[in-house]
Amino acid sequence: MPTATRLETISGGVTRPQGFRAAGVSAGIKVKGLDLALLVSDGPATAAAVFTTNRAQAAPVLVSIDHLARSGGVARAVVVNSGCANACTGEAGLAVAKGMAAETARALGCPAEQVLVASTGVIGVELELSKIERALPQAMGALGADQGSQAAQAIMTTDPFPKEAAVRFNTGGTADATIGGMAKGSGMIEPMMATMLGFITTDALVPQPLLQRALRAAVNDTFNAITVDGECSTNDCVMLLANGASGVTVDSSSYDAFLEALRAVCLKLALGIVRGGEGATKLITVTVTGSASAVEARRAAKAIANSLLVKTAIHGGDPNWGRLIAVAGRAGVEFELSRAAVSIGSIALFAGGRPHDENTPAVAAYLQGTDIDVSVDLGAGTATSTVWTCDLSAEYVKINAEYRT
Amino acid sequence: MPTATRLETISGGVTRPQGFRAAGVSAGIKVKGLDLALLVSDGPATAAAVFTTNRAQAAPVLVSIDHLARSGGVARAVVVNSGCANACTGEAGLAVAKGMAAETARALGCPAEQVLVASTGVIGVELELSKIERALPQAMGALGADQGSQAAQAIMTTDPFPKEAAVRFNTGGTADATIGGMAKGSGMIEPMMATMLGFITTDALVPQPLLQRALRAAVNDTFNAITVDGECSTNDCVMLLANGASGVTVDSSSYDAFLEALRAVCLKLALGIVRGGEGATKLITVTVTGSASAVEARRAAKAIANSLLVKTAIHGGDPNWGRLIAVAGRAGVEFELSRAAVSIGSIALFAGGRPHDENTPAVAAYLQGTDIDVSVDLGAGTATSTVWTCDLSAEYVKINAEYRT
Repeated sequence: MPTATRLETISGGVTRPQGFRAAGVSAGIKVKGLDLALLVSDGPATAAAVFTTNRAQAAPVLVSIDHLARSGGVARAVVVNSGCANACTGEAGLAVAKGMAAETARALGCPAEQVLVASTGVIGVELELSKIERALPQAMGALGADQGSQAAQAIMTTDPFPKEAAVRFNTGGTADATIGGMAKGSGMIEPMMATMLGFITTDALVPQPLLQRALRAAVNDTFNAITVDGECSTNDCVMLLANGASGVTVDSSSYDAFLEALRAVCLKLALGIVRGGEGATKLITVTVTGSASAVEARRAAKAIANSLLVKTAIHGGDPNWGRLIAVAGRAGVEFELSRAAVSIGSIALFAGGRPHDENTPAVAAYLQGTDIDVSVDLGAGTATSTVWTCDLSAEYVKINAEYRT
Repeated sequence: MPTATRLETISGGVTRPQGFRAAGVSAGIKVKGLDLALLVSDGPATAAAVFTTNRAQAAPVLVSIDHLARSGGVARAVVVNSGCANACTGEAGLAVAKGMAAETARALGCPAEQVLVASTGVIGVELELSKIERALPQAMGALGADQGSQAAQAIMTTDPFPKEAAVRFNTGGTADATIGGMAKGSGMIEPMMATMLGFITTDALVPQPLLQRALRAAVNDTFNAITVDGECSTNDCVMLLANGASGVTVDSSSYDAFLEALRAVCLKLALGIVRGGEGATKLITVTVTGSASAVEARRAAKAIANSLLVKTAIHGGDPNWGRLIAVAGRAGVEFELSRAAVSIGSIALFAGGRPHDENTPAVAAYLQGTDIDVSVDLGAGTATSTVWTCDLSAEYVKINAEYRT
């Protein structure tokens, strides 16, 4: 795969690419704090998006899908609220989501279908459009190229910290282009309050089909390869706006370089979500090798990453390789015990059909760290997959048992 | 379905049916307590069994499958140890499992293939045959028709209490027959120490094909319909021995009555496992209705029962119906939000496309109990499924994070 001739991680988020401004204000949807984010491209941008596969798609998801279809993949702005998911809210909820877009479009002087909408927070509670209408003028006034971090804060719910990422890259031409993004967690989904949202901008000019293809590919190995609690929400979405302000055009010859840069932004945001998962104390990288197929490798890696027994063992610093073998064996994939292997932190615990208990103390020491690599070889082929998760702590139970009390 | 003309729950377990004796002794495999169980039929019994689908099947599972095949489904005894799963132990482990059966067979004077073997405990640790050889004479001497509860204790690992069940039933003839059973948890599987094992006896005479068919049917709606943590171990098995000592014969005309009685024993044992799940404080019955098919109903019910967010919400007494809708929506089944419904304790929380928040206080009060019914209508058909699970507590994390430390 041809790569970017230069790929450089830089600070900032959605307003690092040229021609984007953002704002984060308080609309009174949450009890306190910023809860309304506005992201605006100075000119019409090409837009791509991926949405939750949950069959109970929330109103903002349905409206954004409709707007992308009607605009032919063109967007001027994204308006996002936290504190209320506007999900399971019926026709009234749809009217609110449409109203959010219409009000924003009116303020910007663009067609309503060029505004995308997202919400995150409690399911089944009505979102008050009047609160958003009152706060929108303030958000319009606050719009700035230096306000990306305010927007990143306004989309947070239980997230312990905001997630921003940006890269500068060059595809071989004279000018550089930039990709920036922001995201929130803090679960793969916690549908009451922690919907996963991602918003990415770039000042490259990218034809819509190529933009959508790149987004799908990047999301597949990043946002779709993380799990905090195995839940997929009613509101998940990742949106990508490309406005061409850099003068850099992406075509099929520079696609791979663009994808590499986009993947870097998505990965940083996705890992931020895992690191900030509810109750998380460790980031766990699960790599499955020796699989009969890529699909099976991903399935096994996800099964391991969602295993309560694996997540609690790593939380407790226990080099419990038997739990990893047992999950691999029940994951519904080709698995050959006599050729299987388990290592943690590149230290073998099981290989060649036998335990390596002599390495237990070294692995126990390694598990005291906060970034944990786990590898399982299925002994059944050559395909691989990597996914990311976090440990499971008593704090996770506390957060989710006591949320509304 | 024709039912038993009488079906009566009675006390006791595996030795309630005539012609069965049991013992539970200490072989020194666990640090302390009973850890070797022996279950013997006075004469050869017809045997049926179901085993884990985990691809890393433990040595005792492989040996028992082999013995059932070679004996043509006849067994005299089952020998079980706790404290060591004899899993991932290679050829040496197979030799130990075979040795357990051979030693028991020698003491009973029967062919080795008429002895079934089961183990539960830590994965990847060698089981010392010498300990079992030393304890077997003691177990043989202790065998008694009043020792079923000793055997039920000897198969426990982290189980908070032993699980026994028995029923007396009549299929229309003059004599009654009895079914008894014992089981251990305390997870659907915790492969380090909580493998699920079930052992059932009956003094009815049942042809092997009918016995196997009844066991599969009963297990499907009981043991296979429970989950504590979504894990399937390397050692799971349920074995059923029918020795005919009651003189009651089961044939196709009385099959349904026998199945009803068998299901009652399996259900009581299975619910005991869930109630005694690691860290559990509540037994949760999840019923899915309105599904497009039975397979999808089961899939949705299992997804709900394994959802960390559902289990923590119920642990915290939170009437959080949005989490139930979100899981149903992501479960990969037909789901129609506008016709879906959620109720807890038969009290509606979501129906006809809208929340019933007026019922929240009543449901919150109901959730203070220890037996919780949750119903979700998918709005997509007429099929139903019921599964059982427990809540997820901080104590679960503590047990599994600190197990080996």
